[in-house]
Amino acid sequence: MHPLDAAIALTPDGDDRFRGATSPAYANMVGPFGGTTGAVMLNAALLHPARIGDPIALTVNFAAALADGAFEIESRAVRTNRSTQHWTMQLTQGDAVAATATAVFAIRRATWSAPEATAPADLPPPQSLPRDTVAHRLAWTNRYDMRFVKGGLPAAPDEPEREDSTSVLWVRDDPPRPLDFASLAAISDSFFPRIYVRRRRTTPIGTVTLTTYFHADDAVLAAQGDRPVIGVARAQTFRNGYFDQSAELWSDARQLLVSTHQMVYFRE
Amino acid sequence: MHPLDAAIALTPDGDDRFRGATSPAYANMVGPFGGTTGAVMLNAALLHPARIGDPIALTVNFAAALADGAFEIESRAVRTNRSTQHWTMQLTQGDAVAATATAVFAIRRATWSAPEATAPADLPPPQSLPRDTVAHRLAWTNRYDMRFVKGGLPAAPDEPEREDSTSVLWVRDDPPRPLDFASLAAISDSFFPRIYVRRRRTTPIGTVTLTTYFHADDAVLAAQGDRPVIGVARAQTFRNGYFDQSAELWSDARQLLVSTHQMVYFRE
Repeated sequence: MHPLDAAIALTPDGDDRFRGATSPAYANMVGPFGGTTGAVMLNAALLHPARIGDPIALTVNFAAALADGAFEIESRAVRTNRSTQHWTMQLTQGDAVAATATAVFAIRRATWSAPEATAPADLPPPQSLPRDTVAHRLAWTNRYDMRFVKGGLPAAPDEPEREDSTSVLWVRDDPPRPLDFASLAAISDSFFPRIYVRRRRTTPIGTVTLTTYFHADDAVLAAQGDRPVIGVARAQTFRNGYFDQSAELWSDARQLLVSTHQMVYFRE
Repeated sequence: MHPLDAAIALTPDGDDRFRGATSPAYANMVGPFGGTTGAVMLNAALLHPARIGDPIALTVNFAAALADGAFEIESRAVRTNRSTQHWTMQLTQGDAVAATATAVFAIRRATWSAPEATAPADLPPPQSLPRDTVAHRLAWTNRYDMRFVKGGLPAAPDEPEREDSTSVLWVRDDPPRPLDFASLAAISDSFFPRIYVRRRRTTPIGTVTLTTYFHADDAVLAAQGDRPVIGVARAQTFRNGYFDQSAELWSDARQLLVSTHQMVYFRE
């Protein structure tokens, strides 16, 4: 079983309830990588017998650091329309709420379609770039093969601050895993905090909320398979303890897979 | 009383419950303007006796068109930490859930701060531009004074499709109203659907989810007062029934007030 599938595995525990557990393979500084927390909450809708359609949007709110170990997720379809379905999820450990989420699912139909944003052009192929190893003391970063075109973490502690926090990279699950909605949800949280990229040093941070919009469908996911996708991330403002971060994931054929946004707490 | 304050007025109805009603002053094509729905759900946290701090993030999921008339909102502080608080809200009419929301509040502290995105430069002043009147048959659009620098709605039905859905405009409440978190939440949903701007024609649409990140604090809001703010909006992709839309609101001193994102259903 792929470590991501193990990390997001859920056991039904009565109506609208599932049991899961954190996974050492995705350990972060404190508790698990937030991407797997988001993916397992999405999975509590994906696995629910009442589910219709595919994910359109997911918002995950990180209310507290998860403790390593077991958790419960309650997931409820609060409204089912003809082609859309609205979900609320809550992740608890004992009596404490550690995360909340909402999701929108939909049955998509073919319509007029057009891209507007464009993927970065003329990228070197992933195999021509070195794999990032700067953050490898955190288990979860070993679960992603990241190859930075620009905007990686500082390798030395004495780099001057930058004006621009933009990163462009190739990223895929390690070991490779065919892309699906759960892995897109997890990869959406794999971008290093923009404040590290900009200030060239680390500081205590924590994502408080993460929203991901899914533009891919099964055909696009199948065409991408397990090859690396392109990630682009940037901040808009850093102000009094919080910054926002927006990112896109693109297929290697330059189709937009997800657009994703978060607000991140930082200290100092 | 300003019509926005009337539209977001709530009466406590027991622990964690409030009663409100839609407002004809903000009527949309079907039901009320989504911006007031988002603002009244935020207000159910702002008015709650357990609230700490100011809004950092708000996600509103529009599960169904509201019927004109009364509604109930349940708002719960599901987790209160030292400086952050996580909220869930649910808006019901009878037994039906019409909207859900989550919010993060925080007590902010002064830290290193830096802008990264920049506001559009060299804008003509609002009073030099004509007020938009194209959409004025919808009541809610009369509650906003919008003056487009670019990317307004088509005035005639025969304009060719554009490559770019970007809008830049000055916008303020009408009548003028000092800016606060509730009005920022409402204005965040006042951008016309990007598909109208791009295709130069209307089609049935509906926002399914809207996320707003608040970068302003009381001092920034007080400095802005009731003068027009700058809005910038764009789409990233239109695909099989859904498009995403990202926008910023800037103070006239070019401070980022909010960044806001949505996924919108469209037909055809």
